[in-house]
Amino acid sequence: MAQRGTRRIRYAVVGAGNLAQVAILPAFQNAGENSELVAIFSSDRTKREALREQYGVEHCAGYEDFEEVCREAEVDAVYIVLPNTLHREFTERSARAGLHVLCEKPMATTVEDCEAMIRVADEHDVRLMVAYRLHFEEANLRAIELLRSGKLGDPMMFSAVMTQQARRGDIRTRADVGGGALLDEGPYPINAARYLFGSEPTEVVCFTQEDPDARFKGVDGTAFALLRFSEGRMGQFGISHAASAVSSYRVICSKGDLRADPGFGYDSERKHFVTLGGKTEERTFAKHDQFAPELLYFSRCILEDREPEPSGWEGLADVRVIVALQESARTGRAVKLAPFERRDRPSIDQLIVRPAIEPPEPVNAPAPTVE
Amino acid sequence: MAQRGTRRIRYAVVGAGNLAQVAILPAFQNAGENSELVAIFSSDRTKREALREQYGVEHCAGYEDFEEVCREAEVDAVYIVLPNTLHREFTERSARAGLHVLCEKPMATTVEDCEAMIRVADEHDVRLMVAYRLHFEEANLRAIELLRSGKLGDPMMFSAVMTQQARRGDIRTRADVGGGALLDEGPYPINAARYLFGSEPTEVVCFTQEDPDARFKGVDGTAFALLRFSEGRMGQFGISHAASAVSSYRVICSKGDLRADPGFGYDSERKHFVTLGGKTEERTFAKHDQFAPELLYFSRCILEDREPEPSGWEGLADVRVIVALQESARTGRAVKLAPFERRDRPSIDQLIVRPAIEPPEPVNAPAPTVE
Repeated sequence: MAQRGTRRIRYAVVGAGNLAQVAILPAFQNAGENSELVAIFSSDRTKREALREQYGVEHCAGYEDFEEVCREAEVDAVYIVLPNTLHREFTERSARAGLHVLCEKPMATTVEDCEAMIRVADEHDVRLMVAYRLHFEEANLRAIELLRSGKLGDPMMFSAVMTQQARRGDIRTRADVGGGALLDEGPYPINAARYLFGSEPTEVVCFTQEDPDARFKGVDGTAFALLRFSEGRMGQFGISHAASAVSSYRVICSKGDLRADPGFGYDSERKHFVTLGGKTEERTFAKHDQFAPELLYFSRCILEDREPEPSGWEGLADVRVIVALQESARTGRAVKLAPFERRDRPSIDQLIVRPAIEPPEPVNAPAPTVE
Repeated sequence: MAQRGTRRIRYAVVGAGNLAQVAILPAFQNAGENSELVAIFSSDRTKREALREQYGVEHCAGYEDFEEVCREAEVDAVYIVLPNTLHREFTERSARAGLHVLCEKPMATTVEDCEAMIRVADEHDVRLMVAYRLHFEEANLRAIELLRSGKLGDPMMFSAVMTQQARRGDIRTRADVGGGALLDEGPYPINAARYLFGSEPTEVVCFTQEDPDARFKGVDGTAFALLRFSEGRMGQFGISHAASAVSSYRVICSKGDLRADPGFGYDSERKHFVTLGGKTEERTFAKHDQFAPELLYFSRCILEDREPEPSGWEGLADVRVIVALQESARTGRAVKLAPFERRDRPSIDQLIVRPAIEPPEPVNAPAPTVE
């Protein structure tokens, strides 16, 4: 294994589904400054061989040889992009092998899993970051900056929609691997409401629609939620894998409002519409690679031996809201949340923007089965 | 009293607050075809005298002489624009005096009041219409038409925000006269979700924020709600009298989506943004008088002796949802709604658009006290 102080952090990408193929693997070409792709894990032999050739990566293996292959490849850090139910297991295996962990959102499917992940990273003195790409995205950081500047007055209301049509067989339509709208899309509006308000929800309520059609197997294809915050602030969001693609949020303040539309995706330019004093100004943000900045930042944290900002605590803060929403959907009752001390905040200082890159066509997109 | 078949229906406007002054009284100049303003009721003598002069209306009186003045002025119909808690009383008094009733929304503050109003109109054989101006507004009717056409696929999700800053002393900030966001603004997103989906909600949940600041006296200054409909459809809305003015709704369908922004107001042009196949088309609807069409339509219903389409049943359909939302906000539980047979539907055939008019400056705007 490489020692701290090494110039480039050597990464294994763990999981080779659609997101890995269209976004994460290609991002290494924009992160060469301090990050290097040295191993890819997938249970699909054909996919592995295709990716080995495509990325010139020698170490492409199945999960049975995970620790051994990481040792052979001198891996420093893993980027976990497995089904949500496997995030904890591979975070624990990685930490025990002394590997730093960058884990896709949602961090896990239960609060206990998140806590165990934070604990194991602490115990083995490895860095743990949850891959919130929007913490490194210019439009989003400018939104935070604008709201904190007070120009629009006090932020009072948050409203978001995030929808897409999942294909039949999509991993997100399956309960057994942690699919569903709340786990897959929920982190976006929840995380956004939290960092745009700069506080934690105190009470939530949720309606889910299980199985809106035959595509969905026991998961919430659609979820609608209300979030109550302190000081009279409130938020709402509607998310779905069964509706035409929309991705937008709006923050209404005491003096004006900000609408971001598109607001959450990674595959298009972003627009802000800022209304103040009856006038609306539009601002366009070019499409950028949102994954390379995560790699660059996480590698820097490892090299400089400091805690990443969207750490496990940030992941846990969202998962505990998701779990409360699931409980509310099940019971038909509002669920109160205990106070949560926020130990991570995205900062404008993190802004690292790289030129947009065109993702390659995935080997077999979208991955219809579990990794 | 004028007999049926009379060419022009003679109206009394009952209440002379801000809405009456900026929108309803001026609308008569666009409704001269079949409607005439012959009386104005207000408890404020100074205001009455100013309005008598401004509109050349001989019969301007206080409420104590309501029935007598209506008789003297040969009133056929009243437009009730009183505080919400007085809608039932004046509907009953009007119906018993043989007067047809056009009543502002919300129809009343309880389901019992709405039912009593429907009953008294039936018993006295007068027409009862609730003043849903958006049932007569082109952008809104085109939205219904578009969604029913199926071009965007199945309507799946409704999301709305409607906010404004109420001034201190505004009637909408007071509980004693039926103020609050749910009663004042709630009818807009609730009514819209119902007619855009073409069905009734089956379950609702709500968070309210009482007294978000010192302006508000025991009312919900802000309310957020979720509405569940049949066939997997869901809606959310956030409304407030304590945030910068926004008025927008979005309907996300299986193939595309419609965003109306501004969507609910009467004092600006409207815009539709229709997205289908990745392309968004914008359409602007000029500002129109939304009140004259109501008068023209209601007068026509009286003259032709037929039931108006947004009748008391339509008003009741919204009020029962508001009451369920109030219960949910109080109990922290989702509230199920019994089936409701919808007997009224807005129709594209009702479209009557008149040129926009500039409302006059109100005599003392905005009315800081109860009428």
